[in-house]
Amino acid sequence: MDSSIAIPSLSKLRPEAEQAPASGIVDVANYGRGRPGIIPLWVGEGDLPTPAFICEAATRSLATGETFYTYQSGIPELREALARYHERLYGKASDPERFFVNSGGMPALQIAIRMVAGTGDEVLVPTPAWPNFVGAIVIAGAQAVGVPMNIDAHGWNIDLERLEKAVTPRTRALVINSPSNPTGWTASHDDLSALLDIARRHGLWIIADEIYGRFIHDPTLTVGGRSPSFRDVMTPEDCVLFIQTFSKNWAMTGWRLGWLEAPPPLGPVIENLIQYQTSGTPVFIQRAGIAALDEGESFLADQIARARAGRAIVQRLTESGLVELPPPSGAFYAFFKIRGAKNAKDIAMRLIDEANVGLAPGSAFGDAGEGYLRLCYLRKAEDVEEAVRRIAEALPRLAA
Amino acid sequence: MDSSIAIPSLSKLRPEAEQAPASGIVDVANYGRGRPGIIPLWVGEGDLPTPAFICEAATRSLATGETFYTYQSGIPELREALARYHERLYGKASDPERFFVNSGGMPALQIAIRMVAGTGDEVLVPTPAWPNFVGAIVIAGAQAVGVPMNIDAHGWNIDLERLEKAVTPRTRALVINSPSNPTGWTASHDDLSALLDIARRHGLWIIADEIYGRFIHDPTLTVGGRSPSFRDVMTPEDCVLFIQTFSKNWAMTGWRLGWLEAPPPLGPVIENLIQYQTSGTPVFIQRAGIAALDEGESFLADQIARARAGRAIVQRLTESGLVELPPPSGAFYAFFKIRGAKNAKDIAMRLIDEANVGLAPGSAFGDAGEGYLRLCYLRKAEDVEEAVRRIAEALPRLAA
Repeated sequence: MDSSIAIPSLSKLRPEAEQAPASGIVDVANYGRGRPGIIPLWVGEGDLPTPAFICEAATRSLATGETFYTYQSGIPELREALARYHERLYGKASDPERFFVNSGGMPALQIAIRMVAGTGDEVLVPTPAWPNFVGAIVIAGAQAVGVPMNIDAHGWNIDLERLEKAVTPRTRALVINSPSNPTGWTASHDDLSALLDIARRHGLWIIADEIYGRFIHDPTLTVGGRSPSFRDVMTPEDCVLFIQTFSKNWAMTGWRLGWLEAPPPLGPVIENLIQYQTSGTPVFIQRAGIAALDEGESFLADQIARARAGRAIVQRLTESGLVELPPPSGAFYAFFKIRGAKNAKDIAMRLIDEANVGLAPGSAFGDAGEGYLRLCYLRKAEDVEEAVRRIAEALPRLAA
Repeated sequence: MDSSIAIPSLSKLRPEAEQAPASGIVDVANYGRGRPGIIPLWVGEGDLPTPAFICEAATRSLATGETFYTYQSGIPELREALARYHERLYGKASDPERFFVNSGGMPALQIAIRMVAGTGDEVLVPTPAWPNFVGAIVIAGAQAVGVPMNIDAHGWNIDLERLEKAVTPRTRALVINSPSNPTGWTASHDDLSALLDIARRHGLWIIADEIYGRFIHDPTLTVGGRSPSFRDVMTPEDCVLFIQTFSKNWAMTGWRLGWLEAPPPLGPVIENLIQYQTSGTPVFIQRAGIAALDEGESFLADQIARARAGRAIVQRLTESGLVELPPPSGAFYAFFKIRGAKNAKDIAMRLIDEANVGLAPGSAFGDAGEGYLRLCYLRKAEDVEEAVRRIAEALPRLAA
């Protein structure tokens, strides 16, 4: 081999790829995974498998040979089912051409970001926030700018003034997640109007993640069985991209099925981006999605009831006087702080060792989450009760 | 609404998204789709649905509730099955940690490109080439530089000198697709050595697409039932990323299941990129992949026999004296030129109208493909025979 030969180092990668942040949850989960008797509440999924009527729709499709390439944007039957679902939920007629089927909410987010932000651009993200928002922004070459939310005894709230002050000439979009993972914060109708005004004033896109919209627990924020939505305040001309998923409502996390809702004129661009990302979603999985939308309300009602029961159980942690936990308005997480706790990851590790309970460290959700722990309570009541009992027992040792 | 409000125009998108090229095949397919009696040979898939033993593996997995989030890189059982398959095929022990399961070959390609190229970088692609190479490069913000291949009476061949001359200080990678879609060109052992030397000399990555490696028809290029591979000439330190798919060998185009083979030290980066792309592949689909790898050789042998029969039938087009078609060494496409034809898309449209046969225009594969047509012959013999009969009948009118 010639001495002038320059074998590229394996580490010579693009900064967008190298700098993609690792999940702060995986470290903790790897530490605790497989321990006998551990109660794993670190991930955003419940304990029920997908209901049989949904699985059977996929099985039937497979049996009829629906195993070929298909439409990039989804089969027409699913896009129509999505339009029906949106009409029922939001009370407005909806065009099937607004819905672009994706292999999960995450690829929908990736496409939304890729359309509006890249090298040199900034995207604002209220924090604490689901870490994948930052990941998708970094991979697109753009900069994620976290804007901390406020917390008081009533819960988390968004600081609209601080958010608007963070807008620069490089800002291209706001990512708004309501109800929020991890905090449970849920935007009011007025919050959404104000956010839309900020976007309009500065010519920004809104990327709206309302995937927990059916899990709304604060009656003052409930509109026809859902949280307030940008759909309630926007006009068709507003630049709002909705990312959505089947994962949470219908216990389909492992199916990788979601959708992007966008103005139909973006269709050709979105179809190209799907082509060069996953080249579409399996038809048999889309058939399962139709079953979920058309026949899944009773299962979803059960899921919501489980979440409410879990939320009430976890709230008992505050009886110790050692935990700050304003009741979350929506979603299915408790995001709480143990008095005096500084390092969330340390506490999460100790809870594995000392309580055999797996939680996600708040630091995974940005600096604003440091010191907090996220607990997913979408689980059968006896598991949540036992987890709370074990955490409560460990609390006096963990609190400073 | 304040008159200073600047509603962003829907067309204000990132150039990487807007400039992503549309498929030149879709236009033609849309023109012909649904015509009674049309023989659709435009897409790269056969006419057989996925065999039952593969579908049943997915169905069994669903029935046991494997519907939860899973490992980003794939379930260990599939990574081990991939290692076994590679050992059988390449005669070398293989580490399961080299294999990263993806939701198709396309997402594997997207991740490979994203790791090595972005804004300001160039990637060399011998052309004619599968258009998705260019798509993935453009979306990453990099520039795809096509390097035309040569053709003579014996077939297509790569111009190594021209390729090396196209290397600039901005070049980061070579994309090598052998056997090639659309031309059927298959790199010899010596070609692969020379390509690897070029990559080493200039510090470039190789992105190797050998997905048609089992469909090899030229006995002088056949090594143990497969085409020559970079694995035959590389060392473990060489920077080669293999993209692969279950689609072609096992009639699984619609499943979206593939893999990226890469040096294990890249694992943490690849896992992050999977997390922010699809967040993993459904477990029940991965179970189907295991069945395909472990029990799919007899089905694959039938597929290869079908391809060979189809190839022989299509070759009869040359008897007219109006068609240039050197026998393709590999894959399952005939890439041919009608004497005097200039505009491939016009000819493809006329073949729909006048012969009721659907082919892909060569212009979809880059400028070097202009004037050519691609015909997928992985289909039952009577369909291929009828298509050839219809094309032959139209030839005298189409040739100049």
